[in-house]
Amino acid sequence: MSKSLTAEIISVGTELLLGNTTNTDARDISVYLSELGINVYYHTVVGDNPERLTKAVEIARSRADIIITTGGLGPTCDDLTKQVLAKAFDLEMCYHEELAEEMRRYFKEIIGVEHMTENNLQQAYLPAGCTVFHNEWGTAPGCAFEAEGVRVIMLPGPPRECNAMFKNCAMPYLSALSDEVIFSHSLHIFGRGESDVEAMLRDMMNELKNPTLAPYAKEGEVMLRVTAKAATEEEAEKLTLPVVERLRAVLGDIIYGMDVKSLEGVVLELLKEKHMTISTAESCTGGFIAKRITDLRGASEVFMGGAVTYSSESKTAVLGVKRETIERYGVISGEVAKEMAENARRVFGTDIAVSTTGLSGPDGDGINRVGTVYIALATPDKVFVQMENSGFGRARSRTMATNLALDMVRRYLTGLPVVVDYFGR
Amino acid sequence: MSKSLTAEIISVGTELLLGNTTNTDARDISVYLSELGINVYYHTVVGDNPERLTKAVEIARSRADIIITTGGLGPTCDDLTKQVLAKAFDLEMCYHEELAEEMRRYFKEIIGVEHMTENNLQQAYLPAGCTVFHNEWGTAPGCAFEAEGVRVIMLPGPPRECNAMFKNCAMPYLSALSDEVIFSHSLHIFGRGESDVEAMLRDMMNELKNPTLAPYAKEGEVMLRVTAKAATEEEAEKLTLPVVERLRAVLGDIIYGMDVKSLEGVVLELLKEKHMTISTAESCTGGFIAKRITDLRGASEVFMGGAVTYSSESKTAVLGVKRETIERYGVISGEVAKEMAENARRVFGTDIAVSTTGLSGPDGDGINRVGTVYIALATPDKVFVQMENSGFGRARSRTMATNLALDMVRRYLTGLPVVVDYFGR
Repeated sequence: MSKSLTAEIISVGTELLLGNTTNTDARDISVYLSELGINVYYHTVVGDNPERLTKAVEIARSRADIIITTGGLGPTCDDLTKQVLAKAFDLEMCYHEELAEEMRRYFKEIIGVEHMTENNLQQAYLPAGCTVFHNEWGTAPGCAFEAEGVRVIMLPGPPRECNAMFKNCAMPYLSALSDEVIFSHSLHIFGRGESDVEAMLRDMMNELKNPTLAPYAKEGEVMLRVTAKAATEEEAEKLTLPVVERLRAVLGDIIYGMDVKSLEGVVLELLKEKHMTISTAESCTGGFIAKRITDLRGASEVFMGGAVTYSSESKTAVLGVKRETIERYGVISGEVAKEMAENARRVFGTDIAVSTTGLSGPDGDGINRVGTVYIALATPDKVFVQMENSGFGRARSRTMATNLALDMVRRYLTGLPVVVDYFGR
Repeated sequence: MSKSLTAEIISVGTELLLGNTTNTDARDISVYLSELGINVYYHTVVGDNPERLTKAVEIARSRADIIITTGGLGPTCDDLTKQVLAKAFDLEMCYHEELAEEMRRYFKEIIGVEHMTENNLQQAYLPAGCTVFHNEWGTAPGCAFEAEGVRVIMLPGPPRECNAMFKNCAMPYLSALSDEVIFSHSLHIFGRGESDVEAMLRDMMNELKNPTLAPYAKEGEVMLRVTAKAATEEEAEKLTLPVVERLRAVLGDIIYGMDVKSLEGVVLELLKEKHMTISTAESCTGGFIAKRITDLRGASEVFMGGAVTYSSESKTAVLGVKRETIERYGVISGEVAKEMAENARRVFGTDIAVSTTGLSGPDGDGINRVGTVYIALATPDKVFVQMENSGFGRARSRTMATNLALDMVRRYLTGLPVVVDYFGR
């Protein structure tokens, strides 16, 4: 196709409007459509109400080349999507005996029910002339048809079925329509806020057309997506590369990874690569660093364990932090952070260890400003210590301290300066 | 108000259309609107594009009494929601020096930056004559105005800010439109899935009109909301009470709290009440229990610390679990869980301690089924142990094990049987 196609997703279900469920179907489909280079300009959510669904379809067909519906294909009297769409595009509904047969088999073999109830047969009716999307993940079939210049795709609502059917049936159907493909690289950044990053890149973002450059804020992080369109994936990727280079030149080592999942994911891979092990000694972060590392499959290869030494006594009892150090410097101090990390490294027998001690608040301790945290990284040669105060509330300052600890590990493992004054304090 | 008002939520953000984020704002607001008795007929998502946002607003004002926007209030050039809405309703934008001052203070005191960048000032402009919603949770203020018979509410996009501002600013604003007040009680349940709970309560839910009864599924938990309308809050609450009684009779002790924030919150309060202390010894949950307890302010009163003993060696080195026990019963066993909890209790010098050891997967160990977890609770008199296998994947089984551990503590502290076969395995 010469011009980009546009799609609109209409999600049908009163439970969405009541806030009982989150519209993950629209998100999942949007990711796939973006990969296909199909522009999505609107998502609409509408209840199980034929009049309002009809109106939503009227609006969508006036502004999109492709309408994708999710939900309302099931066997209950609330399930009206197919009937409404067929009527809107003036199509008859046709009975498919082979679909009824598939459903009977599904009930017998998968659910273990001999006779499925009659209402299930409603699912075997589809608009005349459509391409059937068989449902291998549930019972309600989906379909696609073209009518009056618009392509309509209907998918079941349950996220697992919707996602699988989009990927396996709708994706090939839509790919066949396009002669362009899309490719994107994501750069992940820690150490600068979104508005800072945007200020640094504004001119570049405005100037770029293909590829495009867009920033996304994540909890304490920023993600930059560079997206290009071309005839082949190779050509599209090639278009992104000079932009990636420019971004690397501008942003330098605050980019912690490209096309990666998370900071802890990068740390885990680096540790595996270098055959190094890690342990944690956490006070103010209360187990959050350990939790994030162990969220990842394969963590047990490199993560041996951690101590959550929340009370002063436990810092001494479990990690052997000297009472004297605590008395002399205070429990929230670089010296205590240093001993915590050094001792965790020894207790858990790991190559490196990170520690945190700080004041998450909301109550102060009369000495440190709320939010103050000391983070230490003990390595075979040296212990690095840094102080930070993000100034955020309890939850965000804990997240920030966790990010900083992981970033110190990342910087150490990649040979960068470990202690950086990211926030210019 | 005599007739029910209708609202439409317009969420603004290209990241939503690219599938980079899920529209949880629309879900959260929908829950609140449903409590207020305001009907939601449509959600719309539109990108950071003034023409398309203008069109979405035109459609919304033709079919809703209230338009609620989320997103696009920030300091970047993509943030256009206020400008577009002001233009659509023919309002000037006015500069609020006091908002600029609040932002400068926020940057100085909270972020620790002496001079905020100029682009932040964009956030101090709001449509003329609006009600300002001060943002105590971030920088971008929200607002509400009435124009041409439509009420417009604009909220920031970040879920935490959006949710807090809706609850604290938009909720009172909308309540004031009605001469009825609403009151709800929330019952929090752990130990039964949503469809189970719904099956138990279906007749009751269908029969009830005022109050209404609605279930919401949360990660491994269910929340039931009983909502009544009346002329005064006292009358509305009175209407909810017989229903709460009936629910307590039907559901019994799987209700872990009413109008509470979380299971860990209930546990923390119980520990404070009883002047008892707790520690944790975590293997498969990897610090998640400690993290959830220390998420709460005031945790340091009762939580002394925890050990994350991920490797077998660390179970011995840090907690003193006997090698023999590990060799004889396997590291994933009730016996190891028992020793972990007992020893944590001793090491941290706490009244009670909980432990977990299990197989989060995705890889198996050749002995246990993936998802198997043993949880122990050591108390002054006795150690309780239970085995569970939720059959979920890594993330959900870790959450479930964390919930189960916290629930054992809750049951112990309230004098209920500690080990319950919730899932009938």
